[in-house]
Amino acid sequence: MRREDFLREPVKHIKINGKLTVDELIQQFKNSGSFGAGRLSTACDIYEHMLRDEKCTVFLALAGAVVPAGMRSLIADLIRENLIDVIVSTGANMVHDAIEALGGHHYKGHWIVDDYLLYKYHIYRIYDVFVPEEDFTRLDYKLAEMYTEIAAEKRGKSLSSNEFAWELGKRLSDKNSILRAAYEEKVPIFLPALRDSEFGFIHWLHASREGCKDPLLVDAFKDVPQITNICKCSPRNGMIVIGGGVPRNTVQSAALASKRGMDYAIVITMDRPETGGLSGSTLTETISWGKVKGKADKVMVIGDAVITFPLIVASVLERLGKEFKRTPYLKRKNLLPVEEA
Amino acid sequence: MRREDFLREPVKHIKINGKLTVDELIQQFKNSGSFGAGRLSTACDIYEHMLRDEKCTVFLALAGAVVPAGMRSLIADLIRENLIDVIVSTGANMVHDAIEALGGHHYKGHWIVDDYLLYKYHIYRIYDVFVPEEDFTRLDYKLAEMYTEIAAEKRGKSLSSNEFAWELGKRLSDKNSILRAAYEEKVPIFLPALRDSEFGFIHWLHASREGCKDPLLVDAFKDVPQITNICKCSPRNGMIVIGGGVPRNTVQSAALASKRGMDYAIVITMDRPETGGLSGSTLTETISWGKVKGKADKVMVIGDAVITFPLIVASVLERLGKEFKRTPYLKRKNLLPVEEA
Amino acid sequence: MRREDFLREPVKHIKINGKLTVDELIQQFKNSGSFGAGRLSTACDIYEHMLRDEKCTVFLALAGAVVPAGMRSLIADLIRENLIDVIVSTGANMVHDAIEALGGHHYKGHWIVDDYLLYKYHIYRIYDVFVPEEDFTRLDYKLAEMYTEIAAEKRGKSLSSNEFAWELGKRLSDKNSILRAAYEEKVPIFLPALRDSEFGFIHWLHASREGCKDPLLVDAFKDVPQITNICKCSPRNGMIVIGGGVPRNTVQSAALASKRGMDYAIVITMDRPETGGLSGSTLTETISWGKVKGKADKVMVIGDAVITFPLIVASVLERLGKEFKRTPYLKRKNLLPVEEA
Amino acid sequence: MRREDFLREPVKHIKINGKLTVDELIQQFKNSGSFGAGRLSTACDIYEHMLRDEKCTVFLALAGAVVPAGMRSLIADLIRENLIDVIVSTGANMVHDAIEALGGHHYKGHWIVDDYLLYKYHIYRIYDVFVPEEDFTRLDYKLAEMYTEIAAEKRGKSLSSNEFAWELGKRLSDKNSILRAAYEEKVPIFLPALRDSEFGFIHWLHASREGCKDPLLVDAFKDVPQITNICKCSPRNGMIVIGGGVPRNTVQSAALASKRGMDYAIVITMDRPETGGLSGSTLTETISWGKVKGKADKVMVIGDAVITFPLIVASVLERLGKEFKRTPYLKRKNLLPVEEA
Repeated sequence: MRREDFLREPVKHIKINGKLTVDELIQQFKNSGSFGAGRLSTACDIYEHMLRDEKCTVFLALAGAVVPAGMRSLIADLIRENLIDVIVSTGANMVHDAIEALGGHHYKGHWIVDDYLLYKYHIYRIYDVFVPEEDFTRLDYKLAEMYTEIAAEKRGKSLSSNEFAWELGKRLSDKNSILRAAYEEKVPIFLPALRDSEFGFIHWLHASREGCKDPLLVDAFKDVPQITNICKCSPRNGMIVIGGGVPRNTVQSAALASKRGMDYAIVITMDRPETGGLSGSTLTETISWGKVKGKADKVMVIGDAVITFPLIVASVLERLGKEFKRTPYLKRKNLLPVEEA
Repeated sequence: MRREDFLREPVKHIKINGKLTVDELIQQFKNSGSFGAGRLSTACDIYEHMLRDEKCTVFLALAGAVVPAGMRSLIADLIRENLIDVIVSTGANMVHDAIEALGGHHYKGHWIVDDYLLYKYHIYRIYDVFVPEEDFTRLDYKLAEMYTEIAAEKRGKSLSSNEFAWELGKRLSDKNSILRAAYEEKVPIFLPALRDSEFGFIHWLHASREGCKDPLLVDAFKDVPQITNICKCSPRNGMIVIGGGVPRNTVQSAALASKRGMDYAIVITMDRPETGGLSGSTLTETISWGKVKGKADKVMVIGDAVITFPLIVASVLERLGKEFKRTPYLKRKNLLPVEEA
Repeated sequence: MRREDFLREPVKHIKINGKLTVDELIQQFKNSGSFGAGRLSTACDIYEHMLRDEKCTVFLALAGAVVPAGMRSLIADLIRENLIDVIVSTGANMVHDAIEALGGHHYKGHWIVDDYLLYKYHIYRIYDVFVPEEDFTRLDYKLAEMYTEIAAEKRGKSLSSNEFAWELGKRLSDKNSILRAAYEEKVPIFLPALRDSEFGFIHWLHASREGCKDPLLVDAFKDVPQITNICKCSPRNGMIVIGGGVPRNTVQSAALASKRGMDYAIVITMDRPETGGLSGSTLTETISWGKVKGKADKVMVIGDAVITFPLIVASVLERLGKEFKRTPYLKRKNLLPVEEA
Repeated sequence: MRREDFLREPVKHIKINGKLTVDELIQQFKNSGSFGAGRLSTACDIYEHMLRDEKCTVFLALAGAVVPAGMRSLIADLIRENLIDVIVSTGANMVHDAIEALGGHHYKGHWIVDDYLLYKYHIYRIYDVFVPEEDFTRLDYKLAEMYTEIAAEKRGKSLSSNEFAWELGKRLSDKNSILRAAYEEKVPIFLPALRDSEFGFIHWLHASREGCKDPLLVDAFKDVPQITNICKCSPRNGMIVIGGGVPRNTVQSAALASKRGMDYAIVITMDRPETGGLSGSTLTETISWGKVKGKADKVMVIGDAVITFPLIVASVLERLGKEFKRTPYLKRKNLLPVEEA
């Protein structure tokens, strides 16, 4: 590269004259183009590219307390609008989705508080969000019943984590529920560590009940070929990762096992690479594995997803406009390699 | 506190239906109210409160590469619109402001690059921003001349860092320059570590020139009473801190020395408290010192300022509307305790 | 609290006169007592307390690339010395343990490297550690055989993640293997997200083989009562968490489900609370849930576990001395509520 | 590079058999060689190289609350043993050094505390360290007297920050004081932002006293040629940076202005590069500027300096042994380009 190649495009300074739409501000970030602002505007471009690419399947990986923090309807709406094709989540996010679907709530709280008092009051804290124990108890009771019902229907046949998620969705009626929306729209939700959440405790309740002979059986490995085949059947794949952890790893492993590699990748996280954990690993590191393609359109946004993900969605929805309609490739081709609930 | 007091306000989930203005999105964040989104919306409220409080002086502390990253015009505009009353900055940000005022540029680059090649090409890297050496050289030459001219005018009289900044601003003609805007609008710019930047090297050039008998003298301590008196004369004080470091400490020390304590405080940073440094220290820790009042309206936003500060400004400008005019208290009362340049 | 209560114990400054043992340095940290040094010395005290408490069961939760980074033998030795009673791990750490048990290696590399070249060379990168693809291929082949053998032995009976781990350990002969040591010492290893690792891909290989009629069945929920009962049967429980994620959550959930709450807790992480994720959540937050007792002996060490965990172990082993022998409570009482492999 | 070049050196797993000295553990880290452990062991090697290189001048840059946290004696001892040649510090660290030299103390506290109660009790908090206001008041009174005395001696002649630091050191008698040790050993201490600390407030007290006609004058720019010449006169230069901020920038600017570039560089920090600030910038970025040489021996340790810096010192002192004596190059050659106090 010659010297002048490094000095082509000057930073244009951000100007805010009166009222701006979200995408107008993101365009300013694109023009300034540096540090977090540059990365965020690139993330918007990449999500837009994924959606305009008619052969791309879009994965959303959810770790962290995405639902308690207020992104439940946002994700349910993305599912209903066909702007997300596959979800991989921690169990906990779907637990919190179900809590609200059953009439429970998350409450605005504070992070400086007497936690022992909360304990005595039976209130659980998630940073600055509070959840009353009774909302968990209601969930335990109602879901244990659903487990029994599902087990009876399945008669000893084992489920994958995705079939489990859809079975729950089928039994929830709240339109704003992620589980419900995914069930209705046939968007697979994989929960690779579903036992590591209230879903695990509820299973214990359910299996300990008098008369429970054939408790609900979820096969730990059954979803592996399902998610891998989704990657394989898609001409191109893109991922949006919130947080990292098991959901990020599961999506990336599907890209590796299917020998496809992601064509588009957005990771939103506060983790960093230096301690060697997967959540903070760079998107160049993933290239060495073949999880992300060498020429993929990719970016890592270092920031709080509760701020940056809605910014990305708002910017991209504004760009696409009301007219934009999308039918995911796998649905169009009737290729979704997952059994119906 | 009773149990029900913890469970008053449910998290309202974010909804993005089509095009949103920046403040419409921030209002969604206020309704969800949690994690980073809650903190960011609180920061918008606090800046709005500072500006609507007719007796409040607003300090902006700038550390980090705020100017290279594209926030130069934004800050110059805030000065010209009387939305910022005092600036405390690293020397480097004003160096980079002057570079552009003299025709230089910052260029969009990348953070994965052969730095030794850049070195051989005489290109300096600031994360993903590039600056050519010749823009520094032009600065060195022109500012060394200005130093000589200022020294001649002052005839051995020492300057404070603020007087130094205004003398530079007087000699720059670029309307988008922070230094120029501050000079024109009589907004003090304190540079408590000005020697720690190209301004220090330029002084050496200037003082080493043949025939330089009385080099420009900046008194390291002269700005201490100036900034302290600004706090003292203001019925209320508010600070917006970007980054931390010396600028944050200088503003907080003025609040302490004046025995006023900040009434409003916003800190935007990626630093955390655990290692004990000032930049990551919490705004409750500052209460113990009296730097921030016990009842101050305050928030710490953990995030990249190049994203979050423009969001705050855009949201607040939208709220204030085109009609809003503000005359800072100290200007109204003619109390600005700083000598004119 | 009276004023003098806040001013009881002066910071004693660290002195390094010639050669120090690790615990001598940690004692200096205890005397200085501040910031990270204070927290680290507290962690040493807490691990010592866990081990000297004859009624305490010690859980170790492993997330992040603990094995590739060089802590494999350290953990195997802790198991063999009866200094760790239960392990909860990501699948990946046990995958990397098995890779070395089968003759593979991790190699010292670098984090600035051409990842696309590595990809072409079939070398996988984990920050600054390299693993050749052939070591994974050997693993795939050998473990797929083991899966088939285990499935044949179990004849359709489902396994828990712990039984799966012990079955593997039974078939590995390397004395430095964590899986082998755990199998020999009857230390349960729970892998709540085992499908999210090469173990999942290997299952696919195994199940796709010609003639595979009854593939190995791991019941996603079967380990829930097992780990919960361990907490329940132990008069006291302590946890050491490296990293966070699913392993931390699984241990804490067992403490909650068993209504015991941890009596001792050490968390070593680089994650922070502000974005609301579990990995960075404070140990006071966990009190609100009942996962950690209100009066627990607890500390969070913000730092790289590859540095701090060996420091803790070295300090505590030095304190305990060669003579110290420990028989875990559950083994003494013959209460370990887990089926043998 | 060929494939086999990437796979040369296997990670050796850490073994802790009984009592280890600090350097024995660091050697284990060197053998494992990955993530933080690898970086830390590299830092030990580099500091050892600096000290064994007879033509290297060693700079120590101090930001963050290094002194309150317990590293005061450690640094004073390094000065007295000729293991550090130049110090660049925040003002605050020297303020806290002087507080103890005058009989004050820092106290072990806690980070979860009622800060408003501390405020009412006149106790200042620095994360988990407490300082009583009266120790500041004593400092104010005694140092204001010293300022007056120094001003009288200097008769209007301006001081550099280093001359100021030595003048204070001359007037303090505590053997454990950094300022005293530096004065006695003729180790320059540069305080590029000295006004941003209690030193600034004390100047105001001093200058406001009745009868003060010629207050102490510190020339903001006078230390620029001093520190630059130290770099220039040294055949090789090395830096150890704790924290970042102005001290890091000042040392690096001296390396740039002298056109030497650092030959050795260790940075210990928790800051990261993504937001573009200097404190978290990588040591490859510094190469583009010429602040660090392209072939420098360099490493960045991500971690709490209160843990890692004593580890480095203990490891290196153990390697050097009791016999090792060092006379810094500039002292040997009588080249120290700084006026005596």
